[in-house]
Amino acid sequence: MAVLVQKYGGTSVANAEKIRRACQRVINAAKAGYQVVVVASARGHQTDELIADAKELNPDPPTREMDQLLSTGEIQTVSLFAIALSAMGYDAISFTGSQIRMITDGVHSKARIKSIDTQRIQKELDSGRIVLVAGFQGMSENEDVTTLGRGGSDTSAVAIAAALKAKECEIYTDVDGVYTTDPRIFKQAVKMDQISYDEILELASLGAGVMHSRSIEFGKKYDVKIHVRSSLNENPGTIITHEVPQMEGIMVSGATIQKDMAKIDIINVDNKPGNAAKIFSHLAKAKVVVYDIIQTEVSTEKANVSFTVGMADLPSAKKAVETIKDEVYYDKLFIRDDIAELSVVGVGMRTHYGVADRLFGALALAKINIDSITTSEIRISCIIDKKQAEKALETVCLAFELDKPTDQRKKAK
Amino acid sequence: MAVLVQKYGGTSVANAEKIRRACQRVINAAKAGYQVVVVASARGHQTDELIADAKELNPDPPTREMDQLLSTGEIQTVSLFAIALSAMGYDAISFTGSQIRMITDGVHSKARIKSIDTQRIQKELDSGRIVLVAGFQGMSENEDVTTLGRGGSDTSAVAIAAALKAKECEIYTDVDGVYTTDPRIFKQAVKMDQISYDEILELASLGAGVMHSRSIEFGKKYDVKIHVRSSLNENPGTIITHEVPQMEGIMVSGATIQKDMAKIDIINVDNKPGNAAKIFSHLAKAKVVVYDIIQTEVSTEKANVSFTVGMADLPSAKKAVETIKDEVYYDKLFIRDDIAELSVVGVGMRTHYGVADRLFGALALAKINIDSITTSEIRISCIIDKKQAEKALETVCLAFELDKPTDQRKKAK
Repeated sequence: MAVLVQKYGGTSVANAEKIRRACQRVINAAKAGYQVVVVASARGHQTDELIADAKELNPDPPTREMDQLLSTGEIQTVSLFAIALSAMGYDAISFTGSQIRMITDGVHSKARIKSIDTQRIQKELDSGRIVLVAGFQGMSENEDVTTLGRGGSDTSAVAIAAALKAKECEIYTDVDGVYTTDPRIFKQAVKMDQISYDEILELASLGAGVMHSRSIEFGKKYDVKIHVRSSLNENPGTIITHEVPQMEGIMVSGATIQKDMAKIDIINVDNKPGNAAKIFSHLAKAKVVVYDIIQTEVSTEKANVSFTVGMADLPSAKKAVETIKDEVYYDKLFIRDDIAELSVVGVGMRTHYGVADRLFGALALAKINIDSITTSEIRISCIIDKKQAEKALETVCLAFELDKPTDQRKKAK
Repeated sequence: MAVLVQKYGGTSVANAEKIRRACQRVINAAKAGYQVVVVASARGHQTDELIADAKELNPDPPTREMDQLLSTGEIQTVSLFAIALSAMGYDAISFTGSQIRMITDGVHSKARIKSIDTQRIQKELDSGRIVLVAGFQGMSENEDVTTLGRGGSDTSAVAIAAALKAKECEIYTDVDGVYTTDPRIFKQAVKMDQISYDEILELASLGAGVMHSRSIEFGKKYDVKIHVRSSLNENPGTIITHEVPQMEGIMVSGATIQKDMAKIDIINVDNKPGNAAKIFSHLAKAKVVVYDIIQTEVSTEKANVSFTVGMADLPSAKKAVETIKDEVYYDKLFIRDDIAELSVVGVGMRTHYGVADRLFGALALAKINIDSITTSEIRISCIIDKKQAEKALETVCLAFELDKPTDQRKKAK
């Protein structure tokens, strides 16, 4: 029998009525002949409430104890799920991360999964039970409870799907799937039927925020078909999978705009080996997360080094760079906090020329100035004025027909 | 270094302020040179709330899943405790019942402890940490979470104290200790300095409700000195221990009154071997808990069988007995739901005559009629009219000087 993993997020299990609705969906899958494993998050705002309880006692609580505390939210959900399924006539059994020996490294609050013992789960599935597993948690070799970080239940679900060689891992959420862009900005955005792991990784890191990046990496590594879909209806969502031939016909799959960021240009840095390393090791020490880096030579001795950071990190980034002025010798800093980053993503870029051409042409036509450009194999990003962000996204979405299902778009060259 | 186990009940850890106050007490014990192990219950009404959440989904939830669900309350308390201790500068580590391998039988919702692995606890204590253990829970050989029933945290604490050979197990509660009788009824009741396991077992089963009976049995079996005391002050409470010589000088240690009960007299039962067994096996099948049983021969062929039950069990008890009328041949039932049971308890009864004499004399003087009498080695109980319950308790307390500390009482003969 094929195994199906279903993951329900906190909003999908927030109260008794929603748990019952989720159970009905689980039962439908069981009736369709699947062995079903459910992974669930803590109910509603429970995790935030527990964090508040802890912070009231200690502004800087030890991470081991926070993991022990926060893991209880997911355990409550899965036992309540089993209790509800039992009332609906189905035999179900819930497990903590420790009970299925989801072994992680010992890094509390952001542990990484090392292995899962599928024996107990498989035994229960084979005896006809629905299995529920508390998401977000595992245990270290030392048997301490560890958690996987925010959004970690996605990773739990994909990892369990990988370990059980599940047919699919369904991620139930309150949106219909992954959209070509943010529908709040570009109303004509359409849901994608499928997207590759690489594309969604680029989109996730660019702020599309659909799924936890680590869960996608896991899915890619272990070849898990991930289906992001709505817990409110029966519509198919978006399948996240390996690159398939038909994806190649599409130049650009999605576009994003990220606004909460700033850019620091370090002007006329001494262009000596090791200077870039000095700058970025100082930023790392200051715990600044650097997004994109651009370096350009301006003469044989001098270069400009630019990088973008989240707005919240700007003060510490500025301070860190100022501290090393006498070490790396630069003329001045040029800081912009009025920028946005527009990105287009698509595996089709690998095989199609003309993406940059069409992108820059569309922006020029709309009179949108480009501050700087960075690219990866399947992504082009432009720094633009924040004021023009919405207009730029709309322009680009129309240029790449992101308002149409893929089969209605003009064929790429 | 001597180990001290401290157990805090739900009201003693209901909010951040109370947790901090309990932590201060833990720290004081650590400063006094003890290795401290804390066992805690779920905060405030958490367990009741989780039960309500479950019942909303299923009026008859499976016990394995209830155990998984309810165990989270205690885990939250101990991790918060560790978080608070850390803020106060003390290194602490919390454990679930599973993490310290508190192995129980597999009887969900009322499991019995079989063994505890003290290695991990002792290792942490020896490294200078304060150890916190979630009460009320263990795990079966199968690694399922099991709970010990209401009041089970007392049992967890005493069992851990036994396993670690602790100097003492302190049970913190919202009363000052164990009283000679219920101070709400007899205002002059005094706190006992000490009481034997046997006496408190009789008092607990008679409804004094100070501590979980199973925890006392555990303490008796493994010789754990239990100290019941208030979490609101520093006063010494009541020590529960083995019988010591000075206890023998006291005829009666405590008195109780139990009102929520009823009595069924089965009149003129055929006095044949096996008839009593039939009656009580039928009652057991009907899940009726029978308190006291009295059988008296009324002729060579006939006997009266009487028993008391909790008021809530009366309808099913009546039905069960009526069902077997044709099997055991009796004339009629006589049911009283207007009774109360007055009991006096004391290990001194073993060596002193005259307890019954003084008890019945005092009741006669106060014109209190006795319906029936049952006794154990250290207890005498009388069924009386419920209307006279308070007056009877007061009469008896004065007769046995339960309003005075033991050293101020007249010496027993």
